[in-house]
Amino acid sequence: MSFRVLQQAAGSAARLGRLTLTHGEVATPAFMPVATHGSVKGLTPRDLRECGTEMLLSNAYHLALRPGAEVIGRLGGLHAFMGWDGPILTDSGGYQVFSLANLARVREEGVDFRSHLDGSAHFFGPEEVVRLQETLGSDVAMVLDECPAGGAPRDVVQAATERSLRWAARALAVRGRADQAVFGIVQGGTDLALRAESARATVALGFDGYALGGLSVGEAREATWAVAAATAPLLPADRPRYFMGGGTPEDLVRLVASGIDLFDCVLPTRHARNGALFTSAGVVVLRHAAYTDDPRPADERCSCYTCTHFSRAYLRHLHMAREPLAVTLNTMHNVTYYQGLMREMRAAIAANAFGTFAVGVLGEEMQAWPA
Amino acid sequence: MSFRVLQQAAGSAARLGRLTLTHGEVATPAFMPVATHGSVKGLTPRDLRECGTEMLLSNAYHLALRPGAEVIGRLGGLHAFMGWDGPILTDSGGYQVFSLANLARVREEGVDFRSHLDGSAHFFGPEEVVRLQETLGSDVAMVLDECPAGGAPRDVVQAATERSLRWAARALAVRGRADQAVFGIVQGGTDLALRAESARATVALGFDGYALGGLSVGEAREATWAVAAATAPLLPADRPRYFMGGGTPEDLVRLVASGIDLFDCVLPTRHARNGALFTSAGVVVLRHAAYTDDPRPADERCSCYTCTHFSRAYLRHLHMAREPLAVTLNTMHNVTYYQGLMREMRAAIAANAFGTFAVGVLGEEMQAWPA
Repeated sequence: MSFRVLQQAAGSAARLGRLTLTHGEVATPAFMPVATHGSVKGLTPRDLRECGTEMLLSNAYHLALRPGAEVIGRLGGLHAFMGWDGPILTDSGGYQVFSLANLARVREEGVDFRSHLDGSAHFFGPEEVVRLQETLGSDVAMVLDECPAGGAPRDVVQAATERSLRWAARALAVRGRADQAVFGIVQGGTDLALRAESARATVALGFDGYALGGLSVGEAREATWAVAAATAPLLPADRPRYFMGGGTPEDLVRLVASGIDLFDCVLPTRHARNGALFTSAGVVVLRHAAYTDDPRPADERCSCYTCTHFSRAYLRHLHMAREPLAVTLNTMHNVTYYQGLMREMRAAIAANAFGTFAVGVLGEEMQAWPA
Repeated sequence: MSFRVLQQAAGSAARLGRLTLTHGEVATPAFMPVATHGSVKGLTPRDLRECGTEMLLSNAYHLALRPGAEVIGRLGGLHAFMGWDGPILTDSGGYQVFSLANLARVREEGVDFRSHLDGSAHFFGPEEVVRLQETLGSDVAMVLDECPAGGAPRDVVQAATERSLRWAARALAVRGRADQAVFGIVQGGTDLALRAESARATVALGFDGYALGGLSVGEAREATWAVAAATAPLLPADRPRYFMGGGTPEDLVRLVASGIDLFDCVLPTRHARNGALFTSAGVVVLRHAAYTDDPRPADERCSCYTCTHFSRAYLRHLHMAREPLAVTLNTMHNVTYYQGLMREMRAAIAANAFGTFAVGVLGEEMQAWPA
């Protein structure tokens, strides 16, 4: 893996970069659509390319339970399995074990839990999770971390942060694939002092990249932004920074301004399934009767397949009739919207105009940018 | 509309033709995937083209209830609404009124029924149904017919057949669009004498094309084939013949052999959603554990997007995980399979080799072909 910062924005921490992974290059800041079960819901790999996607996220927890990492390994790894030849980052499964699985019990060795699918018993330790992702063959693997619930007391967050660090060291000790990057995860909830200590200790372990974890889990969005703004500068400037699992278009602009390079989020894909379309004029909620005979495209400024071929009226009809094509068309549009936003941010940084661009998107001056 | 028989097969009633409609040409025998609600479930219009589709069927009953024909009319008609620029045939809704709607009551004027969606009261008469399809702007409209349940007593079938004829005459009397063909429907259940009389009387009314209706509704498949073989020759050789709503690949070969030109069926699309794939080696049922790590494509002889990019193992995984992409990929394959079968039949007729081809598909001599 290599990462080059091509340009640092003036007046903000935003930066333009190029991340080179085993399966190709990614222009950063980049957004990774979420292929939870090895598929971005409703989109083919060629659809994803057409929507401007260079890199995907998939989920080790879900794939380990179904169809099983060994199955995917026998079939040549996750890229061959899902027909995606670009870079893939796999989440370690830590977040899902704590948020989705049943009866998760943490001990120093790792986590015992039961599958949310069939109740079967499983164990994830830091070493198992490295091996799991090595079997999947993703370009970037994440370490296992303990993820306390949003709003947990400080001592719980501190204990989880410290355990995550010990697990991170164990993960590094067993990593064995030269063609797979491993990212560490900075924890610490919304406590800036805990975050700073976690960042220092995680960086001291020496990872290929660094993630901010445990955010977008129910805290106020201003708290999310504050953590990112305060913590990103503590991470090495020459390593990619990945914000895990958030956000709205506004979040992404603010987080890029804090120097974040990589994003994933289910919002564009989940909103699509719920009939909510991101547009340059705000969110179009298809169930609203006003769209019943609206001949306009979802977004008149968008050049995606959906917007160049179908009206809001048709998209509303498909959504109301629960037609499978609704998922595909809406997701194509929302992913295109997110990728377009990333492209615009990259272009703005390149043109030394990110501040102006951000003000245009956010409709306000941004005061909190780090120097 | 124009229809030319380009070649008559030797030794069977199969024929190669070209149907020219307002929105383009269709090579016959042709298969129309079913876009019930104005969408072939999971496929975009460009997917449909890629799968070899030239013409679609959509459903006046479903579209009249949701979003409403007037809405579609205001948006420029069904082609513009659904983004399909090729020919569309709309079913009249007769079959759905009798099979799907609630409390259908037939009187000479037409049918009163309640929507299966919300219980609202509606009336379909032959004139209303012509106007409905003229508003939709399909290339081919079907007359309203009374569809008794499969296995109904002879007197019920006879009365429905006679009423359908009176309705057909009323439909012809009010048709008003020069750019829309109207097809009559031969009824009569599995009674060959009733079928013959219905064919004679329907042809006497003078339609652009003729359909066989009320088949594939639970009767033995041999009875279906016998009706088609006996009735098709009673229809004008220079008009297209359309078999409504059936069948398996074997059915299609037998019906083409009887001189049928047009087909529609939900089987390839519905089977796809149920994880059953038509292949040159039989039906692949994806839930079978044997496919868990099967690296082969669904059909090694198929060149569709699904078969050239994904394994049975991946398709099984998507199906078991209920991923929306399963619908798209499976449907792409099954529609490609059906369109490939039609293309092979057309090529076999053109090469004067339809008999050999049919024996190859059916694995037996076909004795029942009309001369």
